[in-house]
Amino acid sequence: MVGRTHGIHGEPIVFGVKFLSWYAEMERHSERLSHARRTMSVGKMSGAMGTAVHISPALETAILSELSLKPESMATQVVARDRHAELFSTLALIGSGLERIAVEIRHLQRTEVREAEEPFRPGQKGSSAMPHKRNPIGSENITGLARLLRSYSQAAFENVALWHERDISHSSVERVIGPDAFGLLDYMIARLGGILKDLIIYPEKMKQNLDMTRGLVYSQSVLLALTRAGLPRETAYKIVQDAAMQTWSGPNDLMTNLKLHPELPASFPERELLAAFDPAPFLSGLDEIYDRVLGEHHHHFGNEGC
Amino acid sequence: MVGRTHGIHGEPIVFGVKFLSWYAEMERHSERLSHARRTMSVGKMSGAMGTAVHISPALETAILSELSLKPESMATQVVARDRHAELFSTLALIGSGLERIAVEIRHLQRTEVREAEEPFRPGQKGSSAMPHKRNPIGSENITGLARLLRSYSQAAFENVALWHERDISHSSVERVIGPDAFGLLDYMIARLGGILKDLIIYPEKMKQNLDMTRGLVYSQSVLLALTRAGLPRETAYKIVQDAAMQTWSGPNDLMTNLKLHPELPASFPERELLAAFDPAPFLSGLDEIYDRVLGEHHHHFGNEGC
Amino acid sequence: MVGRTHGIHGEPIVFGVKFLSWYAEMERHSERLSHARRTMSVGKMSGAMGTAVHISPALETAILSELSLKPESMATQVVARDRHAELFSTLALIGSGLERIAVEIRHLQRTEVREAEEPFRPGQKGSSAMPHKRNPIGSENITGLARLLRSYSQAAFENVALWHERDISHSSVERVIGPDAFGLLDYMIARLGGILKDLIIYPEKMKQNLDMTRGLVYSQSVLLALTRAGLPRETAYKIVQDAAMQTWSGPNDLMTNLKLHPELPASFPERELLAAFDPAPFLSGLDEIYDRVLGEHHHHFGNEGC
Amino acid sequence: MVGRTHGIHGEPIVFGVKFLSWYAEMERHSERLSHARRTMSVGKMSGAMGTAVHISPALETAILSELSLKPESMATQVVARDRHAELFSTLALIGSGLERIAVEIRHLQRTEVREAEEPFRPGQKGSSAMPHKRNPIGSENITGLARLLRSYSQAAFENVALWHERDISHSSVERVIGPDAFGLLDYMIARLGGILKDLIIYPEKMKQNLDMTRGLVYSQSVLLALTRAGLPRETAYKIVQDAAMQTWSGPNDLMTNLKLHPELPASFPERELLAAFDPAPFLSGLDEIYDRVLGEHHHHFGNEGC
Repeated sequence: MVGRTHGIHGEPIVFGVKFLSWYAEMERHSERLSHARRTMSVGKMSGAMGTAVHISPALETAILSELSLKPESMATQVVARDRHAELFSTLALIGSGLERIAVEIRHLQRTEVREAEEPFRPGQKGSSAMPHKRNPIGSENITGLARLLRSYSQAAFENVALWHERDISHSSVERVIGPDAFGLLDYMIARLGGILKDLIIYPEKMKQNLDMTRGLVYSQSVLLALTRAGLPRETAYKIVQDAAMQTWSGPNDLMTNLKLHPELPASFPERELLAAFDPAPFLSGLDEIYDRVLGEHHHHFGNEGC
Repeated sequence: MVGRTHGIHGEPIVFGVKFLSWYAEMERHSERLSHARRTMSVGKMSGAMGTAVHISPALETAILSELSLKPESMATQVVARDRHAELFSTLALIGSGLERIAVEIRHLQRTEVREAEEPFRPGQKGSSAMPHKRNPIGSENITGLARLLRSYSQAAFENVALWHERDISHSSVERVIGPDAFGLLDYMIARLGGILKDLIIYPEKMKQNLDMTRGLVYSQSVLLALTRAGLPRETAYKIVQDAAMQTWSGPNDLMTNLKLHPELPASFPERELLAAFDPAPFLSGLDEIYDRVLGEHHHHFGNEGC
Repeated sequence: MVGRTHGIHGEPIVFGVKFLSWYAEMERHSERLSHARRTMSVGKMSGAMGTAVHISPALETAILSELSLKPESMATQVVARDRHAELFSTLALIGSGLERIAVEIRHLQRTEVREAEEPFRPGQKGSSAMPHKRNPIGSENITGLARLLRSYSQAAFENVALWHERDISHSSVERVIGPDAFGLLDYMIARLGGILKDLIIYPEKMKQNLDMTRGLVYSQSVLLALTRAGLPRETAYKIVQDAAMQTWSGPNDLMTNLKLHPELPASFPERELLAAFDPAPFLSGLDEIYDRVLGEHHHHFGNEGC
Repeated sequence: MVGRTHGIHGEPIVFGVKFLSWYAEMERHSERLSHARRTMSVGKMSGAMGTAVHISPALETAILSELSLKPESMATQVVARDRHAELFSTLALIGSGLERIAVEIRHLQRTEVREAEEPFRPGQKGSSAMPHKRNPIGSENITGLARLLRSYSQAAFENVALWHERDISHSSVERVIGPDAFGLLDYMIARLGGILKDLIIYPEKMKQNLDMTRGLVYSQSVLLALTRAGLPRETAYKIVQDAAMQTWSGPNDLMTNLKLHPELPASFPERELLAAFDPAPFLSGLDEIYDRVLGEHHHHFGNEGC
């Protein structure tokens, strides 16, 4: 399929690298969540001012260990709120990661693109007015919820600077964002999981889209072939850009426009030009990248999945 | 051109209504900015505690009027910071409005859509690696800057609750976001203005995209025609949805699939069916809408612009 | 009572100016809320793309007027979301204004200050561990909730830039922040209203606090008296600052330290010095300020309330 | 000195535990910053789409290792932006931690409290109008800057969900918040460091404040003594609360009011009552707490420092 930067066709990729990129990001989120969980796994029984007057630190440690908690090393009346802010900013971060996946699905489902589509139940109505509609409403929902998770983290940051040995301004915030943030994130994960599990894929449309710019996605391959053949990079760039711009605006494909370009050296072998339009080299590094993310023992589906 | 909701083709529109919608929004922003300007057009000379000990309120009013400012009716040591928070949230709001336009341009420029494109200077390079690239970098830039304006408003909200007759925590914030927010917004407006002024439009592609779903964009017209002919809405919806889903997945256009549908009443006149696929009715309300936004004396370009 | 800037004693004020300042701010919030209400009082029946195909703009206007709504002049599938963002940023602004009052009460109730106190019900427990506690928990609660209102406005700003003729990402956000923001703000207003209505005031403590710095709060009065007597401002400032710093660190009051200062001109009349320590002039401008905020016909309580 | 919750006197503490609490928090921030640094220590040379077409993953790894960077395991055109969002939310978190210290200093410097004070240079002017002023302007400045760091993190969160293989909306944001966030945080650390290094401490005032409520800070000690003597907790609580409320409002100290309370058992030994007003037990757990935070080999200053 085509890879896109700035929403514009770039170069060939395989669909799987999108999942691989999300997988790698989710591993980071998973690690951050474990970190935040450790950060939060503290308790305190060190009294009204945190100074361990009535219960000794040793006893506190013993009791909390029964709950698999560590003692807050130096508490105020409460556990320090930078811990909670880390947690809520981690949830915001995970939400933004889910949003990245959701936005991708929304893009892939756009009518003009239509390379993938959210599952659509029999009997489901996409629109009460327009019976033809099939909308990525799950992914849109998740996109919105990510905004909420981000906003909650702001309130959690503001909770850090409590007055003296504590004030209770954090409490009204936490009573709302605690259940809401976890509930929403759980919902987002479940809903996005369902969407990804049953995602409808249109490989034929991927192929069509890859070819729709009549060779433009191989412009870098041509550029490199020309420079390997000895052309100065600036000259090569100019030739390819000229031909590409004609391809955007006219009927010819890039190869034709290149051949028609007056500055293309007559000595440049046709075989090299043809080779530049071969999608196969774009798969060459994939196995190694899959290994890098998944470890060497994963099933090699890089090429097969293409 | 086709109108899109959820990124999915909906029904025919004209390109101009996008601008009309932005225009109407910008009028609201303009009014908000005037409001914020009035809110900010106050001064104070009422002394260290705002209690007008050394300069009388009457004298303060007289002096400030020389500067076209009103006195803060009851100041602390400073003018109240809800005024500044209104200003910065207005700037954030305007930034989000500019982002809406920028995101639209980015969408329209997507390779598969390509109905409009940011101006691309001769000699400009879209990508050092991929010579064919023409990216909507101006609109992307504006999209990012809107995030900054939003974020500044948060800091401005936090500045409202100063301690007693003032603390100076607001000052370090305002010294940064004051010049930055205005500078960025001015830049955004100028840059987006330049993009819109020289926006490249592809009417042929708009026409192609409108037709690419082979009639699906007329599904509501068919639905309404069937109900006008006496079919219960549920039955009509089922027929149109069935035919639409076959159109999404198969080679036929919607009209063909409708005709093949076993539940389409034989009595339904072909002429009614044909009429439902006419784009002309979608223009019927536009003149009145243009009047509504622009006033009755504007040049009627609704139909001509289509 | 003493006015405070930076948390440090400044000059004499009366308690009422705090309320006057809040009153003036709340009038601005009230006007903003009316503005936001007008902004939100629109509807749309202009169809799936906002282009008034099936219902004419005139009919839409007529129907909406039955609901006391104006039509969105140019809608997409939905009413434009800058309207909602204005609303939620107004709620955030009001929340920040309530926070300003709440933070003031928390400060006034601090044990060392104790000029005012939230009502404390008979039988209420301030702390299960420390029976002597009387905490400003209502004001702390409101302080926290203001953080939530601020955070919601961020999500509302992000809702503005919907895709094309609408996407539905705004919906999941609004379903949460709509009821939550209004519910919380209503609660905040009711709770703060109850606190203010039954606020306990300690005028004796206000008097003690005013005098606790042994005359420092009159430093500007002395400075101005010296300059009126012909001293260069820099010299006068140095004399007063020297004496003030000795007052902060030593046992004498400011007047004594001034008299002991070698640079105080012998010719400076004792009567002028005594007059500088008179709180009465600090009330001179108040009536006019009350008039300015409340109109000329309010009951003049500036002097009496002192 | 007195510990305070909700701004109200609680129980005796030592000044050092505030620093100990900050120290423990800063250790967490330090660890988070190291985490974020590792998160950011990646590079990519895997080409326009991140698919390692022209440079093999092995070569990329080798080159990046020269720069002490790891390769982004699966990049798009750019390194994934959840990494940057982690970084900026960590900076926001650290800023909020510095704000906690700054707010504490501002509170301690309040005129009524005056237990500590920012350094004040000879010749410095606290206020051009009021020569006696010594304001915590450094801590107020830091309080404001923390708001900016928080706001930047919002923009960074919004940068995560780039379109497809990247869009460039993140860039305009990062060009601003990258230098600004680091510059501000560096400034905040340096400035707060200077303030803490030369912080002026008033131990006599700490002692006065501890005693100003005439024994109220020992209410829990009395409560526990009464329950140890066999009184039901509810009865004991009522006695102490009654006596405490009389102490707040009347001239007697808590001990006197307790002795006057009709429900105080005659059998309760005076010696126990006296012991409850001894500050020494409040130091009992401190050595162990210092050990817990600093390790066992630190110099034991818990008792000495009191």
